[in-house]
Amino acid sequence: MKQSSLFTKTSKTAPSDAVSANAALLERGGFVYKNSAGVYSYLPLGWRVIRKISDIVREEMDAIGSVEMLMPALVDKKYLEATDRWGVDVGYRVRGIGEAVDAFALGWTHEEVLTEIVSHHISSYRDLPFSAYQVQTKFRNEARAKSGILRGKEFIMKDMYSFHATQEDFESFYEKSKQAYANVFKRCGLDAYCTRAAGGAFTGNITHEFQVVSPVGEDVIYVCPKCRYAENKEVATVKAGDKCPKCMGVIEEKTAIEVGNIFPLGTKYADAFNLTFTAEDGAKKPVIMGSYGIGISRLMGTIAEIHHDEAGLVWPASVAPFAVHLLDFTKSGTAAKDAYEALQKQGVAVLWDDRQTSAGDKLATADLLGIPLRAVISEKTGDKIEIKKRGSDEVTLGTIVDLI
Amino acid sequence: MKQSSLFTKTSKTAPSDAVSANAALLERGGFVYKNSAGVYSYLPLGWRVIRKISDIVREEMDAIGSVEMLMPALVDKKYLEATDRWGVDVGYRVRGIGEAVDAFALGWTHEEVLTEIVSHHISSYRDLPFSAYQVQTKFRNEARAKSGILRGKEFIMKDMYSFHATQEDFESFYEKSKQAYANVFKRCGLDAYCTRAAGGAFTGNITHEFQVVSPVGEDVIYVCPKCRYAENKEVATVKAGDKCPKCMGVIEEKTAIEVGNIFPLGTKYADAFNLTFTAEDGAKKPVIMGSYGIGISRLMGTIAEIHHDEAGLVWPASVAPFAVHLLDFTKSGTAAKDAYEALQKQGVAVLWDDRQTSAGDKLATADLLGIPLRAVISEKTGDKIEIKKRGSDEVTLGTIVDLI
Repeated sequence: MKQSSLFTKTSKTAPSDAVSANAALLERGGFVYKNSAGVYSYLPLGWRVIRKISDIVREEMDAIGSVEMLMPALVDKKYLEATDRWGVDVGYRVRGIGEAVDAFALGWTHEEVLTEIVSHHISSYRDLPFSAYQVQTKFRNEARAKSGILRGKEFIMKDMYSFHATQEDFESFYEKSKQAYANVFKRCGLDAYCTRAAGGAFTGNITHEFQVVSPVGEDVIYVCPKCRYAENKEVATVKAGDKCPKCMGVIEEKTAIEVGNIFPLGTKYADAFNLTFTAEDGAKKPVIMGSYGIGISRLMGTIAEIHHDEAGLVWPASVAPFAVHLLDFTKSGTAAKDAYEALQKQGVAVLWDDRQTSAGDKLATADLLGIPLRAVISEKTGDKIEIKKRGSDEVTLGTIVDLI
Repeated sequence: MKQSSLFTKTSKTAPSDAVSANAALLERGGFVYKNSAGVYSYLPLGWRVIRKISDIVREEMDAIGSVEMLMPALVDKKYLEATDRWGVDVGYRVRGIGEAVDAFALGWTHEEVLTEIVSHHISSYRDLPFSAYQVQTKFRNEARAKSGILRGKEFIMKDMYSFHATQEDFESFYEKSKQAYANVFKRCGLDAYCTRAAGGAFTGNITHEFQVVSPVGEDVIYVCPKCRYAENKEVATVKAGDKCPKCMGVIEEKTAIEVGNIFPLGTKYADAFNLTFTAEDGAKKPVIMGSYGIGISRLMGTIAEIHHDEAGLVWPASVAPFAVHLLDFTKSGTAAKDAYEALQKQGVAVLWDDRQTSAGDKLATADLLGIPLRAVISEKTGDKIEIKKRGSDEVTLGTIVDLI
């Protein structure tokens, strides 16, 4: 893509209200725009990152046999009344102009909706197990909307739900989902701890959060870096300095960003919506469920928090908006045009800075945007291209073959 | 995909409240589920169709140089107050539980939001022209929500906005968008009339709607099938039986479904948000805009209305959820498994009906789901596969090579 066809411009100064690196850098680079507190637009560069993260998530959910679908954002009162969640304070209410009552909530989660849908399709043990997921805009009336796109009133989530005939089958899928989640975060360039946490449908039930250590995180976790054992503070059985119960490592206290969570739901939702199946022995039983979330937009913010330096963002190649940032310092621009077309022909995602501006401005913009490979064509490089990896100081002379 | 991993089941009977073929067939086939009046879930099969339509739309918008982004569904009061649209009755209002005032509307269109964003990035004629689009869930407080997914309270739209320095440049892009729209509808298997219509930002301004002739349509249009001249009734200068002003054809009156529209916006939104640029001569001028919509979910409903017979849906290959529906009538299932794996290896999107049910049930389900190629493996076909195109009666014996 030519940089001139992006309508966004970068900014040299951080927005005055940005309290975190992700907010400052993503806004300065033109990845996101803050429309209201906690409400963001994903500008063309940022949307490319969101789509790359979403595709990684989709691939890993598909790989464990889950199927994609889309449920409504308008969640009918009937759903949330069935589980006493109509009045929970994270919710937004929706009504038509001039109407006296709220007809809908804006969905922040979809256990109720999917359980009711499934109850019309499932009747036998032969219909189980299965799981379904969606990548969807979600809403929370979030008073603490402050850390850029880490905690928003409107955000993009992947939520998945699984349905099982037996507890053993549920547990087997739950373990598979842990591995799929580990794959997602690793592919996104993040080191996430699978952390024991509270919050299940039943008191005392253990759930798991995926936590990325970062000073801007809102959670406190206790981790053993040696064996990767981790507990959220809320359910902690260890404290900093303790010996880890699983190995000889020493427990550390960290602040961390929660990028995903997985929950055993037991039969709570099946009971509320009468979702039963006939078992092999003819008995009617409630379906056992689990739910599995990943914050897609929060993941973008977390990657920005972890992967940046003082000059700007340093995107991992897997989620970068482009693979190559082509800068042209020549007068004619012919060599850059040829290189751009050759790279496009090879299917390389290339952003060509075709703006009429100084070399210094182009270099600073490239550092801010953080595309993995910077390719400079100038009078002094002749028929070669100066190639530099973002985040490294090493500069090599090469040809377009080295960029493919 | 194995049919057993879809959790949905088909139904032999139409929902009692379905008033249109698209609602009846899409619900019976398990493509969509009605959660509330005008509010639908896209089940795995339906979501595959939506994604195929979206990808076609994206390709055609990218081809005319538009860039994709995503704006919020929560549209701040400040945006709509600036253009006196805060109180328009198609809007939904959003407030937090226990809060006294509505903070947001749910976006049904995004002229205001994008114009304000752009005003922070654009300053010179060198920054123009450009256009940006999004594929997004939109909301309308729709009293007439009745025709399946043709008119919903929540629906999926592609909305695009273009920004220009001159009227000539706008007009040139407007004509390009007409061609891109024609490409989209043709690729989706629809014959859409580009129809003169009202509704522009200025009285007397002409806009264009893309209309597909169908008895369930809510619009009345006058068309000349010979030269494809078309006018919406609201602005009609001709009536049925008239001679077409453009050719010697005869005008016909038709009911039609509006699947897209394109609007000149003039400087209405630029004026409201002070979106100006410095022209080559140094003068400050307001930006000239256009807006361009396609109803993605409505398109799915329209395709279902146009492409079905009494047995079920007949998807055009371009938007079909799968390319091949593999049915197995043998006891062992070995040949079907081999064929399934071979097709998957070749990258063919194949749905394998691996359910334990009768041949009659499988054939009826295949007709209802409407996947373009049906491939039957049975004891009597030996090592051949019986191949039938949905919508045709001709059956041929072939091999998997004929399905690739």
